[in-house]
Amino acid sequence: MLKLFYYRGSCSLASHIALEEAEADYEAVPVDLASGEQTKPAYLAINPKGRIPALVTDRGVLTESLAILAFVAQTHPAASLAPLDDPYAFAQVQAFNTYLASTVHVAYAHGRRAGRWADDPAAITEMKRKVPETMAACFARIEADLPDGPWVMGEAYTICDPYLFTFSGWLAGIGVEIAQFPKVFGHFQRMNDRPAVRVVLAAEAT
Amino acid sequence: MLKLFYYRGSCSLASHIALEEAEADYEAVPVDLASGEQTKPAYLAINPKGRIPALVTDRGVLTESLAILAFVAQTHPAASLAPLDDPYAFAQVQAFNTYLASTVHVAYAHGRRAGRWADDPAAITEMKRKVPETMAACFARIEADLPDGPWVMGEAYTICDPYLFTFSGWLAGIGVEIAQFPKVFGHFQRMNDRPAVRVVLAAEAT
Repeated sequence: MLKLFYYRGSCSLASHIALEEAEADYEAVPVDLASGEQTKPAYLAINPKGRIPALVTDRGVLTESLAILAFVAQTHPAASLAPLDDPYAFAQVQAFNTYLASTVHVAYAHGRRAGRWADDPAAITEMKRKVPETMAACFARIEADLPDGPWVMGEAYTICDPYLFTFSGWLAGIGVEIAQFPKVFGHFQRMNDRPAVRVVLAAEAT
Repeated sequence: MLKLFYYRGSCSLASHIALEEAEADYEAVPVDLASGEQTKPAYLAINPKGRIPALVTDRGVLTESLAILAFVAQTHPAASLAPLDDPYAFAQVQAFNTYLASTVHVAYAHGRRAGRWADDPAAITEMKRKVPETMAACFARIEADLPDGPWVMGEAYTICDPYLFTFSGWLAGIGVEIAQFPKVFGHFQRMNDRPAVRVVLAAEAT
């Protein structure tokens, strides 16, 4: 059985939803980022990087949302969560998810995790100040590229969808109005209506 | 024929080497980041994100190093640049490359591209100051995880290798001594000896 280490509402939400959509045989184990559990020896033995998500498999531990999402898609082909037989289409999925991981998530992290890149409190304050601006710019870029829907890749629901949904859900918390991005907003609403998403949101709320 | 838009020595080097290793039918086209060519309409028509690399295929344009690297591996299976038939091993490759894209590259970007995340000049100076420290921490993490070699994934040369090589090559420029990471240093030297790497470095130097 797969075991996902997650923190409610964090980036691990994408992997959690993907596992549920895939009807995978998995258990979800919370890691309390609020109390710093990810920096304690017990968790560092699972993921030395001290980050979530981590997915324990019978072969070993996988880290990084993008890698876990593709792994879930490839190991559960019946769920059709990625275009596994079309390298170009698969690369489009990967490019979208890489943008989320390396640009969008990074922009957001300058709010709560600015200390990764500066020590001076004034610099950290300045980085935090700019987060709504950079996140809005990221979402303007996403809005411009999104097809009419219903999903990120068009007709097919893929591992891009729970990953985008995760970041879309963070906008309200930093004062960025999601409704200014109509396609993103529509996507967010459609995601909220999916049975698998409802199951995961309920599980993470307990 | 594939067309790779690159800038010499930048992160596009990884895709450039992968194409050469794959013996792909490709053309490499320089984009002069130094003069801001990536922000001009001609290039934005290729990649609206204004970043390199971009790979023009007969189906459309692919962006993001991680996606391009996996695409090259999947479309050139004879080159054996990734464990294509083993989702777990493929996920390990992807996890390593995601760490490079979303943590290592981001740490480095706080030197030259700090303006992405702050406007105040003092904050930008502070972010730049910390870059050698964060990059050294990233490489200490990589050093701890690397197998004895010869390659990132052990015996098999994969798309992780040119990507790590690219970032290893940036350490000297920010005053981080690569020799303090013996496995990384050995990897860097082995990469420099590969015929495909020599061909690409010579091509980018012209």
